[in-house]
Amino acid sequence: MEENRGTGAPAILVVGAGAVGAFFGSALARQGALVSVVCRSEFEDVRAKGFEIASGLLGNHTFRPHRVLRETADYGATPDFVVLSSKVLPSVDRVALLRPVVGPATTIVLIQNGIDIEQEICAAFPRNELLSALAFIGVARTGGGRIHHQSSGWLILGRYPDGITVAAQQLAALLEASGVGCRLTEDVIGARWQKAVWNAAFNPISIMGGVLDTTMMLRTADDQAFVRRVMQEICAIAAALGHPQSPKLVDQLIGHTIGMAGYKTSMALDFENRRPMEIEAILGNTVRAGQRAGVAIPALETLYALAKMIEGKQAASA
Amino acid sequence: MEENRGTGAPAILVVGAGAVGAFFGSALARQGALVSVVCRSEFEDVRAKGFEIASGLLGNHTFRPHRVLRETADYGATPDFVVLSSKVLPSVDRVALLRPVVGPATTIVLIQNGIDIEQEICAAFPRNELLSALAFIGVARTGGGRIHHQSSGWLILGRYPDGITVAAQQLAALLEASGVGCRLTEDVIGARWQKAVWNAAFNPISIMGGVLDTTMMLRTADDQAFVRRVMQEICAIAAALGHPQSPKLVDQLIGHTIGMAGYKTSMALDFENRRPMEIEAILGNTVRAGQRAGVAIPALETLYALAKMIEGKQAASA
Repeated sequence: MEENRGTGAPAILVVGAGAVGAFFGSALARQGALVSVVCRSEFEDVRAKGFEIASGLLGNHTFRPHRVLRETADYGATPDFVVLSSKVLPSVDRVALLRPVVGPATTIVLIQNGIDIEQEICAAFPRNELLSALAFIGVARTGGGRIHHQSSGWLILGRYPDGITVAAQQLAALLEASGVGCRLTEDVIGARWQKAVWNAAFNPISIMGGVLDTTMMLRTADDQAFVRRVMQEICAIAAALGHPQSPKLVDQLIGHTIGMAGYKTSMALDFENRRPMEIEAILGNTVRAGQRAGVAIPALETLYALAKMIEGKQAASA
Repeated sequence: MEENRGTGAPAILVVGAGAVGAFFGSALARQGALVSVVCRSEFEDVRAKGFEIASGLLGNHTFRPHRVLRETADYGATPDFVVLSSKVLPSVDRVALLRPVVGPATTIVLIQNGIDIEQEICAAFPRNELLSALAFIGVARTGGGRIHHQSSGWLILGRYPDGITVAAQQLAALLEASGVGCRLTEDVIGARWQKAVWNAAFNPISIMGGVLDTTMMLRTADDQAFVRRVMQEICAIAAALGHPQSPKLVDQLIGHTIGMAGYKTSMALDFENRRPMEIEAILGNTVRAGQRAGVAIPALETLYALAKMIEGKQAASA
C-alpha cells in the first residue's frame, strides 16, 4: 500500500528527523510531497506544533509534516521514498529502522555522514534502489521542535554505487524547485571521499584538547602542514580505491576553511554536548578502508586511536 | 667567594624551587648541606615559614632553607652546587637564571624533564661540570609553601654527556644518607631516553580530549596497541642515537602503568590548571631528535602537531 495512491505527489517518510531531515523534508513538502517524519527526541512538540524553521534560504516558517510518528512501524505503509537522516552510530540499527516501511517500490535515500555507510543497507535491501546523499548545510536543533538553519543548504545525490536514476532526478528537481540546491553525481562514492577529506581530518582533530574550532586547527604554518598531511592520507586512500581527488583539493579546502569564521565541527559539538559521536562512520571506516587498500595512514590511525580513547572516557563518565 | 668557606659542608643553591627542588633540597639540607633556594611564586611564605613538607618517606617536617631568595643574583656568591629544578619552557631563560652564581668551581645540576635539555647549559658554561638528573617522584605544591610528597622519591644522576664524577658521588651519598634514593648512571642520556619512552608517550596523549588519566589511555587492547606504537617510535629514536633500550621496556612500562591506580601526567595537570606545559622539552625535542636521525615517527609527529594546537588554544584563551 502506498499512501499517495491517486494523488501523484510522492509519499516521503523521513526517519531520524533531526535538523537535517526536518530541513530537507520541509523543502520537499513545499513542493507538494506528502512528507511524514519519524522523530523520537522531540516527538510531542513536533506532533503538536510541527517544526519551526528559522532560515534565510527558505524563510522563517512552520513545517507541519503529513504525519508525525514515534516509530517507523507506526507508518503502516510503504512510501515512495524513505529518507534516513539519523546519525550513523554503532548503537543505531539502521536496517531495523528502515525495515517496516521498505516495500518493493520504495527508494531508500541516505542523507548521512561518513564513508562506506551504504553496503549494510544495500545488503539488507538488495532489490531496492538506493540513493546516497551528502548534506552541505549548517543547521541545528534549538529545542522544542525549533530548527536554526545557519549556513549553506544543498545536497550531492547519486545512486549507490554509481549512476543517476529517474528517482534521483525527481528528488533533485523537487529540492531545486524549493530553492534548496541538489547536485546529481554519477560517482557518489567519489563525492563521499571528497567530503571525507575535510570531515575525517577536521572532525577528529577538533575534539583534541577539549574542543578546537577551525581557527585553532589552522593557526600556524605547522598546524596547516599537519592538516595537509592528514588530508593527503585521505586522498591517498580515495585514489587507491579508484576515486582520485583533484591535486588542488587539499589546498583549496584549507584555504577555504582559513577564510571562514572559526566554527565547530559536528563531532566537536557532539563531544561538547556529550552526545554520541560519528567516530566510526567518519573516521573508523576511513581508516579501515585505508588499511584494506594497503595505504600508509599513520596520522589517521593516530587520530583514530586518540578519538577512541576520548569516546571511551565519554562513555565511562556518562 | 664560596659561602661554605671553612665549614666543609657543601653550599647548594636550588634555583626554581618548586615541589621537586624543595623536596630534594630538604633531603640535602638534612645531611648538613647549606641549602639556599630561589623561589619566586611563594617567596613570602617560604621566607617567613620555610617549606612545610608532608612526606611518608622523610616524615612531615619543615625545611628552612639557609637563605630564601627571590632572584638568583641576590645570592651574591658562587655555590658548590647550583641545582636547577624549574620547568623547561621556551619562555624560561635557564642560562640567565644560572649565570649570576656559576663560579669556576660550581657544579651545575639539572633536575628537569625532557630530552636534549643539557646542550644549551653545556654551551653556556663549557668549563663547569654538568650533572644531569631525572626525578622519579610524585610531589606537588599545595600553596603557601606547603609541599605534598605523594609517591616514589629518587633520582637517576650522571655527568653529562656521560660518566660518573666525584661531585656526582658526593651528591648521591648525601641523598642516600637522607633516605632518598639516588642511582648513579654512566649513561644519563640513555636514562633520559628510557624515561622519555613513558613521558613522551603518555604526557601528550593525556591532554587529548580534555584530560585522560592513565586508565583512560590503556582501557582497551586497541588503546594499548596505540601506546605501544608510540613508545616503539621513541625506542627507535633512542636506538638510532646509540642508546638502545631493552626490548622488554615497552611492555614492562605498559604493564606497570596498567597495574597502577589511574593518575594524571604532569602535562595533564598543567593543562587542567592552565599552566605552561613542557611540550617542547618532553615531546618537541624528542620529535626533532627523531627527524635529525631520520627515524619514521608519524605517531609522535601527529601528537606533537596536536599538542601545539592545544597549547595555542590555551595561550589564546589565557
